[in-house]
Amino acid sequence: MLKRVITNSAHTSVASDHIVRTMAQVSQKLVKVEESRRFMIDCFMAVKVPKEHAEQQADLLVAADHRGHFSHGMNRLEMYINDLDKNSTDGAIIPKILKETPATAWVDGQNGLGAVVGNYCMELAIKKAKNVGVGWVCAKRSNHYGMAGWYTNRAMEEGLIGMSMTNTSPLMAPTRSKEAALGTNPLALGAPAKNGDKFLLDMATTAVAVGKIEIQRRKNAPLPDGWAQDPSGNVTNDANLAFETGCLMPLGGSEITSGYKGFGLGGLVEVLCGVMAGANYSTHVRKWTHAGANSEANLGQVFIAVDPNQFADGFEERMTDMNGILRNCAPVSIYTYFFFKQLKFMFFCFSEQTDPQKPVLVPGDKESQNMKEVDLAGGIQYLPNQLQTCDNLSKRLNIKPLQFI
Amino acid sequence: MLKRVITNSAHTSVASDHIVRTMAQVSQKLVKVEESRRFMIDCFMAVKVPKEHAEQQADLLVAADHRGHFSHGMNRLEMYINDLDKNSTDGAIIPKILKETPATAWVDGQNGLGAVVGNYCMELAIKKAKNVGVGWVCAKRSNHYGMAGWYTNRAMEEGLIGMSMTNTSPLMAPTRSKEAALGTNPLALGAPAKNGDKFLLDMATTAVAVGKIEIQRRKNAPLPDGWAQDPSGNVTNDANLAFETGCLMPLGGSEITSGYKGFGLGGLVEVLCGVMAGANYSTHVRKWTHAGANSEANLGQVFIAVDPNQFADGFEERMTDMNGILRNCAPVSIYTYFFFKQLKFMFFCFSEQTDPQKPVLVPGDKESQNMKEVDLAGGIQYLPNQLQTCDNLSKRLNIKPLQFI
Repeated sequence: MLKRVITNSAHTSVASDHIVRTMAQVSQKLVKVEESRRFMIDCFMAVKVPKEHAEQQADLLVAADHRGHFSHGMNRLEMYINDLDKNSTDGAIIPKILKETPATAWVDGQNGLGAVVGNYCMELAIKKAKNVGVGWVCAKRSNHYGMAGWYTNRAMEEGLIGMSMTNTSPLMAPTRSKEAALGTNPLALGAPAKNGDKFLLDMATTAVAVGKIEIQRRKNAPLPDGWAQDPSGNVTNDANLAFETGCLMPLGGSEITSGYKGFGLGGLVEVLCGVMAGANYSTHVRKWTHAGANSEANLGQVFIAVDPNQFADGFEERMTDMNGILRNCAPVSIYTYFFFKQLKFMFFCFSEQTDPQKPVLVPGDKESQNMKEVDLAGGIQYLPNQLQTCDNLSKRLNIKPLQFI
Repeated sequence: MLKRVITNSAHTSVASDHIVRTMAQVSQKLVKVEESRRFMIDCFMAVKVPKEHAEQQADLLVAADHRGHFSHGMNRLEMYINDLDKNSTDGAIIPKILKETPATAWVDGQNGLGAVVGNYCMELAIKKAKNVGVGWVCAKRSNHYGMAGWYTNRAMEEGLIGMSMTNTSPLMAPTRSKEAALGTNPLALGAPAKNGDKFLLDMATTAVAVGKIEIQRRKNAPLPDGWAQDPSGNVTNDANLAFETGCLMPLGGSEITSGYKGFGLGGLVEVLCGVMAGANYSTHVRKWTHAGANSEANLGQVFIAVDPNQFADGFEERMTDMNGILRNCAPVSIYTYFFFKQLKFMFFCFSEQTDPQKPVLVPGDKESQNMKEVDLAGGIQYLPNQLQTCDNLSKRLNIKPLQFI
């Protein structure tokens, strides 16, 4: 069953993407960020998406690749193209405000592209936040909108706090159930600190994304407790069985480790998105496959902007201080030892160390680091199967193939 | 170290409270809800808290006991009394608006009682939500405010969605660190459904509260992975060591099970509370002990109300539908079997069953059930050590002792 819904999983973490890249034979060819963007714009325009919308969607996808979130980048391109090709998404449409107050807006996404709907809503939220301190915009009839953190970035650029959430197709079982009833339902919060630093949390409310189960499966390795369920609804360590079952566990895993909190968070996102927007919610949301869907997704999403200047002055200074406190927390100790024998005695000497590969990170640090690495290398290193997909797309859509450095 | 900060742990779950009650010898005496409230009001008034403020604080505490959240009920009374006695909380003060827009307010809690500050802020948020769709109120200089869900209840009574968060004293280590830098930082969201039904999530962002570690310690039982760290920052299964170390793990536990998401959520709460309000945050928050503190807590809190009628009509109908979907999800299967021998064959017969003790619950169901049980029994059953504390308080403050049914 998971095979069918695999791409519904929002948020494969950077960590798992890194593992994918390490495990597989990565291509030595690099693609410039600009070129990746150009290729995607060409693809969208080939299926009659207006240039301005194609650019918005491509900006979102290439930003994910730049940050190392490959699952949310060009990896999604073919699915979007298929949806557009089948007219189950309308690439040309402009979202419409149905109702508004100085602080809120209810938007009909009109089944447009996720990035187009999302950008429109966040811009509106930002405008309202600048006027009255908060902008709270809910969209129905939206589509898959990529990284939730993309939209919070726009708010941060304006010195605001941004939040964004979306519902997704069912893939997570409520605690005590063997049946998926909520999606990976991600949430993001971005808060600006001084000199471009930030706190940017962007997370699915499931314990892990499907991608991590796939990786264990390919490695023929067991799953840790708390990732996925078997068909009876019990925790499984069998990656193949988990993959076939298609029932992820909420953040926290089992009930004993408070998985009901992760389930509750998935519910919180569903309440503020699907239910509040009057969109599809819970099991009413369709399945979504690589081949594209035949029905409208009608996802619900929320975009919130808050102006910290309406509260205590000096928000960014305090954010910088808090980020510093967190990054400078004493790291986990690793003990190494050696021993020697002297006369009848054995001496053990322990040395306390820390793992330099595991610094304490603030949410968003990993992604910033990945962007720096890409910039230093001069381009993005895609997996060969991604490049193959691009090659197929360029032939199918009759556009200029992806160019390498 | 945990001994000193034990009471900072917000949110011992109902489940753990139930275990405490089962484990310990519970008193057979019942206390009427009204009487528990009367006793607490008398206590507060004895330390010069004006009647109206005493009532607000007592309402909050007795509501927690009514719901089965004993850790957040009368259990806290002595600490509040001690803080008031030492003047580290000012029981008479009225919160003050420092800055406001139609949708926001920044409030100075003036070091008043948590319930007084919280109620004031949520009422303000409700008023704003009724005018412009959203009310977002941030308070600095507040104190421990009890159950986060208490404030969302008020919003729900008005047909609104309520959210509330507070920072607390450091007790959770960032992922990869051995040092506590964030509190249990709870968050709550309440959304009304039809006929008094609701979705009410009220959770700490740590995996478990300190109370659960105490229980394992008393049982001399090991901790599951993912609850707490040892002094090196590694997961420990040793309840005594965990208790001494005082470093809870975030929701999700270790990095492999996505504990960094729980850490991120704790950070989200800190950003929206301590940092945004200009209150203390992260390691700047004081420790808090049973004896009371000598310094002002200056906690940061946020209270949000949103009017769902500013978006799609029929919100409560959809909430009822979603709650129904979740509650009716197929429960986890348990397999029992019997076997018999016939000629040379052994026959096994498996039967698929579910555990009637483990229905699928919507956040808030457990608490509603507990309220019904208390009402049916006619009163609250407190632990003997709680009754002993009440006895001591009545002598110390010279008030009428707690009466039983």
